[in-house]
Amino acid sequence: MLTKTKLLFLLAGVLIALAASRQALYPQTATAQTQSSGPAYTSAGDFKLPENYRQWVYLTTGFDMSYNTAMSMGHHMFDNVFVDPASYKAFVETGTWPDKTTLVLEARGAEGKGSINQKGNFQSEVMAIEVHVKDEARFPGKWAFFGVDDGKTGKMFPVGAECYKCHAAHAAVDTTFVQFYPTLLPIAKSKGTLSAAYQQESAASAKK
Amino acid sequence: MLTKTKLLFLLAGVLIALAASRQALYPQTATAQTQSSGPAYTSAGDFKLPENYRQWVYLTTGFDMSYNTAMSMGHHMFDNVFVDPASYKAFVETGTWPDKTTLVLEARGAEGKGSINQKGNFQSEVMAIEVHVKDEARFPGKWAFFGVDDGKTGKMFPVGAECYKCHAAHAAVDTTFVQFYPTLLPIAKSKGTLSAAYQQESAASAKK
Repeated sequence: MLTKTKLLFLLAGVLIALAASRQALYPQTATAQTQSSGPAYTSAGDFKLPENYRQWVYLTTGFDMSYNTAMSMGHHMFDNVFVDPASYKAFVETGTWPDKTTLVLEARGAEGKGSINQKGNFQSEVMAIEVHVKDEARFPGKWAFFGVDDGKTGKMFPVGAECYKCHAAHAAVDTTFVQFYPTLLPIAKSKGTLSAAYQQESAASAKK
Repeated sequence: MLTKTKLLFLLAGVLIALAASRQALYPQTATAQTQSSGPAYTSAGDFKLPENYRQWVYLTTGFDMSYNTAMSMGHHMFDNVFVDPASYKAFVETGTWPDKTTLVLEARGAEGKGSINQKGNFQSEVMAIEVHVKDEARFPGKWAFFGVDDGKTGKMFPVGAECYKCHAAHAAVDTTFVQFYPTLLPIAKSKGTLSAAYQQESAASAKK
């Protein structure tokens, strides 16, 4: 007979197992866990770079692009872009970024000849990391940029910095350069989320 | 008092909850779920490209590298490399690849001027996809290469093809070019899994 006591024990078992399974399963889903908690900051307001950002969703890589601020030092550079998995999923569904979106731009040096490679370039050390975070309640302009110099935490760029103006004026979707993310641009087009400024620029450049 | 019956109900609760939580949690971990099933083939033996390979773990991007076979057409090219998440995790732990490892090389065209970019290159359409699969029971040499022309399935390159010889002779770890994967090379070094051929090449080139 299913007495009240037996039911209580059944319930206790369910709760114990749920708690245990969360601990047991989450290590397999480190990316999902990290992104669902959203961006984190130090008490001084610096951004804490998630250790596993390279296991987030990859968006693209540029080579010697002029918008890379670490570019003027006379050597070739790559920049790889990653986004937290939950925000990627939301973009695929909606064509734009949800609150708490975190984009990491990782600049790496470019090596030339090396091993069997005789031309072109492959990637070497990290030279700079910049982060673009959407945190609507925290930042007056909804988004903020951070420069992560030590690979761990990053200071926020002041709101008057050039990066804010350039992203606001030219970015294809919600201050982000989706025009350079080849898998996301078609989604933004089909969802109708391209910025007016970007659409005008595109139309003007198509007429040339 | 904790009777045998109560213990049984406790156990039943644990089992019910575990079963339920597996169903509830796994949809969040689509990449882990997909890769754990390993490589899949058509009845004709062609490789089936997983739809979500771009959500696997990103390894690196090359620019105009000479080992890219699609390179000789007079325009710039990127190649992005992804690996299934379970094999990435195994590599981080062991410094080498487990059975069922699947590496996807995605070659993309490189655009120059476009939007606000005035120099350097950003990525455009997929130009070619090549896959390197470790399937020990299936391939005499343990690994095989496939060319995916239609974005869905790929024919295996014949065992005598140049790619097999070059990878066997020069690759840093288990026929894979870990020397070009900046986050994995230090792991292979510390785990002592670098191939003898690669170590000799490195030593010879360091003496020059």
